[in-house]
Amino acid sequence: MEPFRLSICQMMVKNNKKENLQKAEFMIRKAVSDVNSQIVVLPEIFNSPYSIECMEKTAEEEGGITTRMLSSLAKELKITLIGGSIAEKADGKIYNTSYTYNTIGKCIGKHRKIHLFDVDIKNGVRFMESDLLSAGNKVTVFDTAYGKVGIAICFDMRFPELIRLMALQQARIIIVPAAFNTTTGPAHWHETIKMRAVDNQVYFVAASPARNEEAEYHAYGHSTICDPWGTVLASTDEKESIVTTEILPDRVDSIRNQLPLLKLRRTDIYNLETFKTKK
Amino acid sequence: MEPFRLSICQMMVKNNKKENLQKAEFMIRKAVSDVNSQIVVLPEIFNSPYSIECMEKTAEEEGGITTRMLSSLAKELKITLIGGSIAEKADGKIYNTSYTYNTIGKCIGKHRKIHLFDVDIKNGVRFMESDLLSAGNKVTVFDTAYGKVGIAICFDMRFPELIRLMALQQARIIIVPAAFNTTTGPAHWHETIKMRAVDNQVYFVAASPARNEEAEYHAYGHSTICDPWGTVLASTDEKESIVTTEILPDRVDSIRNQLPLLKLRRTDIYNLETFKTKK
Repeated sequence: MEPFRLSICQMMVKNNKKENLQKAEFMIRKAVSDVNSQIVVLPEIFNSPYSIECMEKTAEEEGGITTRMLSSLAKELKITLIGGSIAEKADGKIYNTSYTYNTIGKCIGKHRKIHLFDVDIKNGVRFMESDLLSAGNKVTVFDTAYGKVGIAICFDMRFPELIRLMALQQARIIIVPAAFNTTTGPAHWHETIKMRAVDNQVYFVAASPARNEEAEYHAYGHSTICDPWGTVLASTDEKESIVTTEILPDRVDSIRNQLPLLKLRRTDIYNLETFKTKK
Repeated sequence: MEPFRLSICQMMVKNNKKENLQKAEFMIRKAVSDVNSQIVVLPEIFNSPYSIECMEKTAEEEGGITTRMLSSLAKELKITLIGGSIAEKADGKIYNTSYTYNTIGKCIGKHRKIHLFDVDIKNGVRFMESDLLSAGNKVTVFDTAYGKVGIAICFDMRFPELIRLMALQQARIIIVPAAFNTTTGPAHWHETIKMRAVDNQVYFVAASPARNEEAEYHAYGHSTICDPWGTVLASTDEKESIVTTEILPDRVDSIRNQLPLLKLRRTDIYNLETFKTKK
């Protein structure tokens, strides 16, 4: 498969849904016009500040203003658009949900965050997503024009089982809209991205919002893309920017042949399985 | 539980078994006399150069000169001794095996390397352990005076399933005699150690030999100890040295309470199990 370009829009999210949608659109268009990216990725909860109150207020149903915009942009620009995540209303519940659209604007992937972020770190961040959100319950891997892609959201990437299951389901690129914070980010962000790439021999793409110092929750930023050897292909700081790299699809096979970690798993000794998979 | 000291003897291994045993004894005694360590850890294949030819030549049965020395030293010095690993002869086969002795010289843990190191990296290291060695087939976690300890050997630590299974079997300290090389070491050593500690919320201890530039296989060195938050407590370069830290057993619970990764695993969505466990 030919190399292609992928961009992360590390956008500044403010307390104004309309402005957030405009900013997302502006940056997506820029990623296409400036560097001709074929896959564009938005961060977690890109249309609202990351807080229980704001997510509740901005939640919308599938087919609402945000997903319509994403679908329409993907089609117009002929890109695969990983729409970060938004608060999704469904069945009287709210989920943290990521939608992916293809070049004809069709939704080809939908992931609801499986692992809710319920932590309380001494002298650090406290957040209880489960006060508002319901959890998804499926592993999400789907076909794209660029091979199989797996999607997880933020805290999901803390769990090696989930990322491994995606690799076992043939994901070659794993994309994670995420918003680590200024406690967990400096402590664990870069190494988690790198090791999920190395262990599973996939491209690993982690997309954060920029840090808004005026917001309640301070995102770590530092959107990063690692190749299957763990080499950092592109990264940034906490400010708003577009992070772009070239993906070489054949490198997945090359690394897997040289260091055959997936092949050398001892499945006679241990077994990892999932009961619930989203096609 | 009270804090205690743990030391890694990052010893220079030469092509002389007797000298290697003397060097191991000297460094173990030094770790006890200089810093009063209660757990002392040797590196992978510490009594022989790491090569197919040398391992075949130095292999010995359980109860041979090396294991007798380890047992006797543990008893005399009243320490828990993680005896790195040696080539073990048994049933007409050769294994890469780690023995642990307690303060009365009793063998309380034995692990045979599960994942054999068979890799061929372009412009880097090529090694085929399976040309000589047979693989173990059990997950190794056992009781010590300092809580449950899990042992893996080198390439074993590449596999997140194994380390996770140890944590699920209540290991609080995971100790890995290892010999990464000058290809895989700079690329992956530090991050693997850190992320296995962070993901599994355990103390993670990785013990390498020093680098012998005259040997065929160049060990990376850099023996390292991380706490359950991923903080590097002690590390070193490639030269011979003793690496010591204080272990605070209660920190495992503290981190697990603040960032409840093990508790928040979605076992309704995925299941990881082992068929073979060594008590």
